[in-house]
Amino acid sequence: MKKLQKERIILGIDPGTSITGYGIIRILGQEPELITIGSIDLTKYNDHYKKLKHIFDRTTGIIDEYHPDELAIEAPFYGKNVQSMLKLGRAQGAAIAAALSRSIPIFEYAPRKIKMSITGRGAASKEQVASMLMRILKFSKIEVKLDATDGLAAALCHFYQTNNPRLEKDYNSWKDFINKNPKRIRKQ
Amino acid sequence: MKKLQKERIILGIDPGTSITGYGIIRILGQEPELITIGSIDLTKYNDHYKKLKHIFDRTTGIIDEYHPDELAIEAPFYGKNVQSMLKLGRAQGAAIAAALSRSIPIFEYAPRKIKMSITGRGAASKEQVASMLMRILKFSKIEVKLDATDGLAAALCHFYQTNNPRLEKDYNSWKDFINKNPKRIRKQ
Repeated sequence: MKKLQKERIILGIDPGTSITGYGIIRILGQEPELITIGSIDLTKYNDHYKKLKHIFDRTTGIIDEYHPDELAIEAPFYGKNVQSMLKLGRAQGAAIAAALSRSIPIFEYAPRKIKMSITGRGAASKEQVASMLMRILKFSKIEVKLDATDGLAAALCHFYQTNNPRLEKDYNSWKDFINKNPKRIRKQ
Repeated sequence: MKKLQKERIILGIDPGTSITGYGIIRILGQEPELITIGSIDLTKYNDHYKKLKHIFDRTTGIIDEYHPDELAIEAPFYGKNVQSMLKLGRAQGAAIAAALSRSIPIFEYAPRKIKMSITGRGAASKEQVASMLMRILKFSKIEVKLDATDGLAAALCHFYQTNNPRLEKDYNSWKDFINKNPKRIRKQ
């Protein structure tokens, strides 16, 4: 008899008032699989409220289409100044409100934590994170814009953090990451 | 024949993660009238998301009950630090998302602007603002908690700012305020 496997769908969002990136992965067993990745372009709206409404509406739409079980968001804890943090907080608030209105639990991760979780280095570049995502989730650069990968990275980070208790702590070093993730190292 | 008067309902909100105060006024002709005033107590929730969900749900509930035409929110532009601004931004984002999901236009006012509009002094105390609100909207201290008055003040400020084009600018001085608002000065 085949063992019943619980499907788990994670939506990852990187809220921002210019671009809000999102990605959805499905986990069946232990393997994460890419369902979709995209970005909400907010640069075309001059009005701050239109941006927020668009974030709220699109997030609600994505949730109603893909029915994620959890939302992972990238949430910087420090910003350049109080003005930019207030704006960011509002963008996060609109995305979070959309998830809360559908009773979806929310998990947030600092950018450093996400990079660490995906690449083993907290200071990894956007390109390095994207490259690792492409290898793990098997998609190519042609299909996906770079600005959307941060949302997807948040989703995958959440999967790693919750799937393997051993990974719940940060890695101590690069060596530590290699030891714990032998499969994720590219052989030269 | 009696002239038809357009009724206008303004919801004022002062979003915060401890207390979110709100007040609703109705304007029929030129006279603002108090419909309700209250506060959403968030201190009982330890979880940040529960607070945000409660702000979103209660704001949606208030909108669906009273059908305001406009939302006025008190929105400080500067805070102690980026952390508190991010939290405040999220609280604002949840309240704003609720209004946007019901297609209600939003207007925001800095605390100084609200105090100036109600009392003629940007540095007025909470008590002075509350006292002026009680006189204008005819309610007593017994009925209303002080923490709710900031939301109501935002609603009344929005009425003053939009009703009388002459008042759209800040007052230059206390004398200027008296000249433009002879009825609002208490005779000794």
